[in-house]
Amino acid sequence: MPGRKWAGSSRVRIERILVAVLWRVWLLSPALVLPALVLPALAQAQSSSAASVAPSVIEDLVAANRILADQGVLDGFGHVSIRHPANPTHLLMSRSLAPALTTAADILEYDPDCNAIDDRGRASFLERFIHCEIYKARPDVKSVVHTHSPGVVPFAASTVPLRPMYHMAGFLAVGVPVFEIRKAAGMTNMLIANAALGKALAETLGDKPVVLMRGHGNVVVGPSVQMAVFRAVYTEINARLQAQAIALGGPVTYLEPEEGAKTEITQQQVVMRPWELWKAKAMAGK
Amino acid sequence: MPGRKWAGSSRVRIERILVAVLWRVWLLSPALVLPALVLPALAQAQSSSAASVAPSVIEDLVAANRILADQGVLDGFGHVSIRHPANPTHLLMSRSLAPALTTAADILEYDPDCNAIDDRGRASFLERFIHCEIYKARPDVKSVVHTHSPGVVPFAASTVPLRPMYHMAGFLAVGVPVFEIRKAAGMTNMLIANAALGKALAETLGDKPVVLMRGHGNVVVGPSVQMAVFRAVYTEINARLQAQAIALGGPVTYLEPEEGAKTEITQQQVVMRPWELWKAKAMAGK
Amino acid sequence: MPGRKWAGSSRVRIERILVAVLWRVWLLSPALVLPALVLPALAQAQSSSAASVAPSVIEDLVAANRILADQGVLDGFGHVSIRHPANPTHLLMSRSLAPALTTAADILEYDPDCNAIDDRGRASFLERFIHCEIYKARPDVKSVVHTHSPGVVPFAASTVPLRPMYHMAGFLAVGVPVFEIRKAAGMTNMLIANAALGKALAETLGDKPVVLMRGHGNVVVGPSVQMAVFRAVYTEINARLQAQAIALGGPVTYLEPEEGAKTEITQQQVVMRPWELWKAKAMAGK
Amino acid sequence: MPGRKWAGSSRVRIERILVAVLWRVWLLSPALVLPALVLPALAQAQSSSAASVAPSVIEDLVAANRILADQGVLDGFGHVSIRHPANPTHLLMSRSLAPALTTAADILEYDPDCNAIDDRGRASFLERFIHCEIYKARPDVKSVVHTHSPGVVPFAASTVPLRPMYHMAGFLAVGVPVFEIRKAAGMTNMLIANAALGKALAETLGDKPVVLMRGHGNVVVGPSVQMAVFRAVYTEINARLQAQAIALGGPVTYLEPEEGAKTEITQQQVVMRPWELWKAKAMAGK
Repeated sequence: MPGRKWAGSSRVRIERILVAVLWRVWLLSPALVLPALVLPALAQAQSSSAASVAPSVIEDLVAANRILADQGVLDGFGHVSIRHPANPTHLLMSRSLAPALTTAADILEYDPDCNAIDDRGRASFLERFIHCEIYKARPDVKSVVHTHSPGVVPFAASTVPLRPMYHMAGFLAVGVPVFEIRKAAGMTNMLIANAALGKALAETLGDKPVVLMRGHGNVVVGPSVQMAVFRAVYTEINARLQAQAIALGGPVTYLEPEEGAKTEITQQQVVMRPWELWKAKAMAGK
Repeated sequence: MPGRKWAGSSRVRIERILVAVLWRVWLLSPALVLPALVLPALAQAQSSSAASVAPSVIEDLVAANRILADQGVLDGFGHVSIRHPANPTHLLMSRSLAPALTTAADILEYDPDCNAIDDRGRASFLERFIHCEIYKARPDVKSVVHTHSPGVVPFAASTVPLRPMYHMAGFLAVGVPVFEIRKAAGMTNMLIANAALGKALAETLGDKPVVLMRGHGNVVVGPSVQMAVFRAVYTEINARLQAQAIALGGPVTYLEPEEGAKTEITQQQVVMRPWELWKAKAMAGK
Repeated sequence: MPGRKWAGSSRVRIERILVAVLWRVWLLSPALVLPALVLPALAQAQSSSAASVAPSVIEDLVAANRILADQGVLDGFGHVSIRHPANPTHLLMSRSLAPALTTAADILEYDPDCNAIDDRGRASFLERFIHCEIYKARPDVKSVVHTHSPGVVPFAASTVPLRPMYHMAGFLAVGVPVFEIRKAAGMTNMLIANAALGKALAETLGDKPVVLMRGHGNVVVGPSVQMAVFRAVYTEINARLQAQAIALGGPVTYLEPEEGAKTEITQQQVVMRPWELWKAKAMAGK
Repeated sequence: MPGRKWAGSSRVRIERILVAVLWRVWLLSPALVLPALVLPALAQAQSSSAASVAPSVIEDLVAANRILADQGVLDGFGHVSIRHPANPTHLLMSRSLAPALTTAADILEYDPDCNAIDDRGRASFLERFIHCEIYKARPDVKSVVHTHSPGVVPFAASTVPLRPMYHMAGFLAVGVPVFEIRKAAGMTNMLIANAALGKALAETLGDKPVVLMRGHGNVVVGPSVQMAVFRAVYTEINARLQAQAIALGGPVTYLEPEEGAKTEITQQQVVMRPWELWKAKAMAGK
């Protein structure tokens, strides 16, 4: 029943108000916060699957879903996950749901084989194996984004490689591999719907931050959910800019790998600036 | 039940307008208000043509109109119909009206010859024959969408065929025919304004989900209103993606028919995910 | 002073509410309306320069300005005029102001030489001669729109002619001349800033509905303000669609003149459908 | 006076947050609220660095940041500065912050070597040297804008020169130089992160209004903050229009230098028209 997906939303709202109040009061006077921390409402607010995770971590994962929808990188499809902070072989990700509608109550925990720990009957994304297999293959990765990013799909279907137009996308300078599912499994429904396909995709990704998926979209990874979102947004923008530059008809100068590597150091420093902007916009009125 | 909360929305709207009018007139002169309270206009508020159809079915047809406007597939023109659930030779469609403004009270019923059952003087779409003739020719079709979808019009005028860029548009892999109205009727006003032209268009559509109309737009059909809307939205998006891919200058890999066929099975499973998102957005504040 | 441009807005609002109320009450019972028509508030609502013009006519001119801004055809620049209904050698147009901010109080009346009848110190558009000279040359024209329509500027600078992609822009099938100001006046500031340039532009327009201005934008005319707005919007959309079709690389089929002529008859019938939609959207909350 | 209504907006915002917090805490436990009412945080709300500058000047600088974000010229990055009106070797610019979030309290003052006069621990933009070095080199410049303007980045990476399509961008007719940071400093992180790079960039800018930065964006200068914003917006729009014109495939006629020079005189006269529109839109609800 569609009504089900709004279940618990009032609880979530109360949780969010409490977090906001406590954070602000903390800034004024930390001593005032302690009594509030034992309020029973808060205890009920936690989703059982995310019980051991700090609310601010869940909040940022929810924000990541809504930011990517608000920025036009995700539409009704696509997903974002984070590695479980306390249990690094597990991951946290929304149940099957349009990303723009995600709330804290929708976040589920998955084991290394992509089984939901406690889904209480709620459906999981068919392509969750993208996430499980990448976390296994890439210990450095703390967040994975899968999109049908509209600027990126044309490059995924083309022989023209995606390359960095400017410093905001310097992370692309290491090269952007393209995963051709036909090579891994012949004629399919294009989905990464099992562990074997997830593993093949992770192999094509290798040690890179982005892999394109022919006839599908892309996967973007990062050392934090903020960096993964940043890269997913600027991969989309860069793809559009590159297409425009190519259409001008003259030669195009891309960032060299050395330039790309140097820009990455700076991006780590400034990533919270757009994140705070995007988050404020995506969460407004929620 | 989701349908329940929209039940009676047309009555509610009329009551709201009356309340607003009476309130304003009251400010001018309280004495003028009393006679208005007994006006028979209110009694006519119910739509008789949709009387035998469940409110949730009408609601989804209204939502389809508003979703397609909200998603940029329809502007002030275009229309959506469904086959009458209880009387399958009849169809349900809005009176002549910009789709974004459709309400339950605007839905009319048409017989197989495209005569309105009870239009109470309200105008019908000039091109309603698109719908009537396709329902006759295609028993599998339960919903028909006609658009001037902006990404699609360039393909309708070009010899470059529309082809599927990714799994969301896998339904295009069976091929997308183009209807050239000059071949059917010479120099016209481009409209499918009678049964003969509707029949010619239905023949060009054949057993496909989408037909382009040269110098005009397209028609998209589906086994449900949700699938027809899904296909209309992703036909638009795919057209834009394909144009961008072509502009990159390299060869483009499209989905093969076998891939397209396999994606269609999945789309049937997930169609409600974007529908619920689009519907929530399109109906917000209505 | 910037505050000045909001002067009279509360008056305008009252006028608008009254008109809305009276229209609705009229539908219920015409007899109730008469007393309201003599309310003194209404008498104060009229702008002196538009004193002899029905409020609904002024309202539609205001709406035209806001619609074209809302639809992305006008930005901070551009203007819309109508021929004075009672004094056909005169015209009505906003004082110099961004079109999105136009109110009834901003509408001024101009004589055939483009002198404001009563500007009360308010500035006029530098390019008002576009309008004055076209009304002189074209008795059939009741409304003139001047824009920097973003889809159109590329065609104005190119040798590629603007041609109709679909029936919504069938009025372009008679051909779209391009005004090269260098031929009329050599090196200028590109503005139609006097009667001689206005006359030269009107000559290039000839008997057509649209003329492009190289390095500038376009002028669109119509037999009513609704038709002029309709044509300005669909000239913009058609330009974008044509650019996309050309970029696909294959031959493009445009509407033939005979097709274009036939579509124009239909457009006259349906023009109020998008107008009502656009007006409701552009005037919402104003 | 227009400035008047925004005066004290930062104080008002802080008061509003406090009221919201206290109200929520009051609901939890009224006793917790009293101590918070005497917190000294409120006393720190005034910006000391802008103490000697008229509020209306600060307001326009804040508006410039928000306008450029609202118009899509800036995203989470980029910055706007003005020359200090009373101390012309100094400049005023926001602390490191997404431009859309700028308030009067965020404006800092910098000395000629780009040291903040009183940052109270708040971070400055890494690339503030763009501004300091241009003010030194160009006494005529009163405002500097640095952007990653999306239409412009493709031209910055291409050999195709940016040229004026229409009178709104006539200021481009003097030529638009491109700064290649590799020539100045080899392989870098692409940022103008010190005075030497700022000086090199200022040299490439020369006496022009706009310089493109390869792999980065652009810098736009003007004799007032309104003109700098106007030029930044129309540089972006012109870039998009030029790309579309090139894609049409035929020769394109650009404004000649003489035409460009003449348009600049007019733009100075009309610059407040779009400024007032953009400002009203960008500051709405702030």
